[in-house]
Amino acid sequence: METKRKYSVTEKKSEVISSLKDFGSKIYEQMEKGDFPSITMPSRSTQNIYYDMNLRQFILGDKSVRRSARNIRHVKPFTQLVWVARFSHELTTQRKTSTLRDVYYSAQAYEMTFKDQQESDNIITDLETVLGLSREDFNIFPEERSAVFGDLTIEYTVPGYEGKTLNLTTHPDGVLIGPALTSAEFVNTTADKIIAIEKGGLFTRFIEENVHKKFNALLVLTAGQAPRATRHFIRRLHTELNLPVYIFTDGDPWGMHIAMVIISGSANAAHLRELNTPDAKWSGVWATDIVNYKLPTDPLDEVDIKRLYELQKDPRYKEDPLWQREIKTFLKIRRKAEQEAFSRYGLTYIVDEYLPAKLEETK
Amino acid sequence: METKRKYSVTEKKSEVISSLKDFGSKIYEQMEKGDFPSITMPSRSTQNIYYDMNLRQFILGDKSVRRSARNIRHVKPFTQLVWVARFSHELTTQRKTSTLRDVYYSAQAYEMTFKDQQESDNIITDLETVLGLSREDFNIFPEERSAVFGDLTIEYTVPGYEGKTLNLTTHPDGVLIGPALTSAEFVNTTADKIIAIEKGGLFTRFIEENVHKKFNALLVLTAGQAPRATRHFIRRLHTELNLPVYIFTDGDPWGMHIAMVIISGSANAAHLRELNTPDAKWSGVWATDIVNYKLPTDPLDEVDIKRLYELQKDPRYKEDPLWQREIKTFLKIRRKAEQEAFSRYGLTYIVDEYLPAKLEETK
Repeated sequence: METKRKYSVTEKKSEVISSLKDFGSKIYEQMEKGDFPSITMPSRSTQNIYYDMNLRQFILGDKSVRRSARNIRHVKPFTQLVWVARFSHELTTQRKTSTLRDVYYSAQAYEMTFKDQQESDNIITDLETVLGLSREDFNIFPEERSAVFGDLTIEYTVPGYEGKTLNLTTHPDGVLIGPALTSAEFVNTTADKIIAIEKGGLFTRFIEENVHKKFNALLVLTAGQAPRATRHFIRRLHTELNLPVYIFTDGDPWGMHIAMVIISGSANAAHLRELNTPDAKWSGVWATDIVNYKLPTDPLDEVDIKRLYELQKDPRYKEDPLWQREIKTFLKIRRKAEQEAFSRYGLTYIVDEYLPAKLEETK
Repeated sequence: METKRKYSVTEKKSEVISSLKDFGSKIYEQMEKGDFPSITMPSRSTQNIYYDMNLRQFILGDKSVRRSARNIRHVKPFTQLVWVARFSHELTTQRKTSTLRDVYYSAQAYEMTFKDQQESDNIITDLETVLGLSREDFNIFPEERSAVFGDLTIEYTVPGYEGKTLNLTTHPDGVLIGPALTSAEFVNTTADKIIAIEKGGLFTRFIEENVHKKFNALLVLTAGQAPRATRHFIRRLHTELNLPVYIFTDGDPWGMHIAMVIISGSANAAHLRELNTPDAKWSGVWATDIVNYKLPTDPLDEVDIKRLYELQKDPRYKEDPLWQREIKTFLKIRRKAEQEAFSRYGLTYIVDEYLPAKLEETK
């Protein structure tokens, strides 16, 4: 189908640049009036982070913080924030990308000092909070890369590739989800679902077994915990193409949480909205799958069990009885299983039997 | 240029299948003669691993081990080895790929028991040793993926893509080095060098700054320690296209060793020849670069220093005065620097100044 272009990347880019300009203009205006410039933004302290049952994600409460150039203790973080905004404006207008690490070092080219990278990371998060945009929007990307495969044609917007299209079945090892793909427009697709997969080996197996054709699916490799750019990409696939998302992870607390972070996000990103896909489903490997499919297992070790008790109390896990049931089952059977465990029944069992059963069960 | 096809992937694949068939035939022949079947292979014990100055890599010595079905203690590993050969034959003839983890679980489908994955990994290494082939040759691939970008056209040999070509500038995030790319033929290129890069952020920077065009280079992202499939891919680029290889890593013992493993391999792979590129150059970030370029640094911590003393005694580091000088300089300055540290002089300094200087220096 032709995509509905609910969300145009190019429009978004000019919104980002306007937001950065507005940010700068407000500071100039205050100074022209003879005032000390100041910025007010929502507080990200733990006391101001709440889980919102309707949005199904963490959000920030009403508390706010104000940084003013009048306050001597604020001058440094205030200046740093203005510099990060200026640098982000440079990146977005020149259409260059950067990383968190790179921003830390780049600051030194401007004689802007950060004590360590943690300090610059924190100021970048401040800018996200002020603008309500994520750092990938202003071209600060993670190092980690994941991949996608399936019948979706995209159109690049990066310099040198404007207007060029690529069908995501072009390279059978999968197409890297980096800055160029993340900023591409979706043109058309025949897929009717998204399948996200934790492990590289299984992603390759799915491609080799033509899961994309047999199940009309776009396959996304999260490569462990999905990088933020990938979570945002999954959300775009869901909202712009209007396709359901099914997530397949290892059957252990860590795999379960990989799915949860795609669905409901993290407390660290309570100030952002566009990273999560609340309607995505965790389709397996469940603790109950381990029992029902008699999978080969390993015992849960102490950190696994500690993690399960933490997740049991986590608000993201409370609303849906599925999660609570699976946590209880893990704690009862005290075993975990990896996605590859299905090879116990032959290499294609996971595709021929398990996948269709679970897609149906979690529809 | 058109590549010389010194090495044809398709020919290699049929060699692999013949090797596996020969392996099986020899066992049948022994049994038909009424003998207990047995296998002799070079020993991989540490006492039989030597560093070869001419080959510039570790090799196995003259000691060998014999596994015989007559010996009750050998029956299990012997049977496991035959099963791994049988499974690898199935993978290669059916043109499916697998992972180490997957082989461990797949064994259970054949009621072949391995105590744990370490045991099955070890038997796979036995098969590598017997055949003198690496596991990627018989379609057992790593999970990790790295990437490549630049003007090289490849031709796929995997099912469904036979005869299709791809130019490796098609996707500006880089093209994943997975089973499909690794098994592709090289068709033609205009590049005259290979630049291997440790970090994803810098790989993206190089693409954005058109390093591939300005320096006629193919860019390879190792993404940390290069997976074996990537080391093999770099070797193929070097030998089949006859191009020099320059490696850029972080300026610390770990980055230095990423370069060394691409160049001279590891003791673990002393039984293999086709993973290393002895003529590749480590072009930076050297300890002396840290000094000469006045880079922002972090102090070496205890594990860094311990590692440097280990490397100082390592035979791979002994032959070339460059390595010894750099180790000494690290130990003297007690500092390390990342590739991103060059951003201290602006985002493009590394491309405009450092890269051409170092390519010239290590030519």
